[in-house]
Amino acid sequence: MRQATTMLTIATDRQGLIEVTDRIAGWVADQNMCEGLLTVFCRHTSASLLIQENAAPAARRDLERYFATIAPESADYEHDDEGPDDMPAHLRTALTTTQLTIPLIDGALALGTWQGIYLFEHRNRPHRRTLALHLIAD
Amino acid sequence: MRQATTMLTIATDRQGLIEVTDRIAGWVADQNMCEGLLTVFCRHTSASLLIQENAAPAARRDLERYFATIAPESADYEHDDEGPDDMPAHLRTALTTTQLTIPLIDGALALGTWQGIYLFEHRNRPHRRTLALHLIAD
Amino acid sequence: MRQATTMLTIATDRQGLIEVTDRIAGWVADQNMCEGLLTVFCRHTSASLLIQENAAPAARRDLERYFATIAPESADYEHDDEGPDDMPAHLRTALTTTQLTIPLIDGALALGTWQGIYLFEHRNRPHRRTLALHLIAD
Repeated sequence: MRQATTMLTIATDRQGLIEVTDRIAGWVADQNMCEGLLTVFCRHTSASLLIQENAAPAARRDLERYFATIAPESADYEHDDEGPDDMPAHLRTALTTTQLTIPLIDGALALGTWQGIYLFEHRNRPHRRTLALHLIAD
Repeated sequence: MRQATTMLTIATDRQGLIEVTDRIAGWVADQNMCEGLLTVFCRHTSASLLIQENAAPAARRDLERYFATIAPESADYEHDDEGPDDMPAHLRTALTTTQLTIPLIDGALALGTWQGIYLFEHRNRPHRRTLALHLIAD
Repeated sequence: MRQATTMLTIATDRQGLIEVTDRIAGWVADQNMCEGLLTVFCRHTSASLLIQENAAPAARRDLERYFATIAPESADYEHDDEGPDDMPAHLRTALTTTQLTIPLIDGALALGTWQGIYLFEHRNRPHRRTLALHLIAD
């Protein structure tokens, strides 16, 4: 059993879902391991992770609109130091996830055919986001 | 330290919560391991996982009604290729989870007394769903 | 590769977010391991886990108000055996998470600067909550 870790940096331009499947799967492939467990950990409280439909851009747009509606910008938040998109970003992070753990089986991540891994940026302005990747495998 | 993996297939008839605790715990018991980590990964974007109350069917019905209300069928979604239950299925998946990791301690999953593991089917028609199970343990 | 497990008991007084980062990180530090994977598992269906902003108490208050609004107490639930705060507690648990898996890198949890680990108590009255901690590491 071996372990490998890395930090993946993702530059974001605006709110929305950014697919990171290829970058993550590429790093996993480079480790030459066959069977194990990959953990992806998002080191932020205003960006999150989501596994979603990788074929239909319309589904991603609906997802982005849905989270903008269910956790909207509003004048009612007490915490607004960083602007009106700050508190909704924390709420959208709380509703999705900060961490994904995915089995590695026969050298490939156990993702289904239509599953992609997305970084969900919740802030309006560009950010540099860091994902910690950890693989324990044979 | 050893690893074991399997694919568990669940046939679903309709939207709703289907308890899979016994099938998962049974497979874990068959591996004869004592201490480690179980990961359950749902390979779909319109079905998800949930750990919830295993004693009260009324709580499950309330959960099903709640997610039908908070992420409803609607004519407003852009993505409707597969029918009106398609986009709400992706939203309900995003609000719950695709993956669960549960410690194995003294040969048993560390679930609390009232916790059951559920597959949450979000589509109206029957589907065959696959859960990837991964166990790393001694 | 070694494993360590423990049960952490948290006494809660009322609904709300209780930071448990120091207690968890302290136990991890006591294990004297360098690289691996920590899993925190909440053994309840009316309390959950959340990684959130650790600097601004106002953000925590907004989070608490948000979940009270999005999954409110109501006379409409079928399941009310344990009182009006019972079913909303299950819903808020379903919307957040029961389990967190966090890489350990160079002897420290891979949390970002502003990330704290919180137990989210969803019941009104005092409870004793148990978190199962599992560490697999070198």
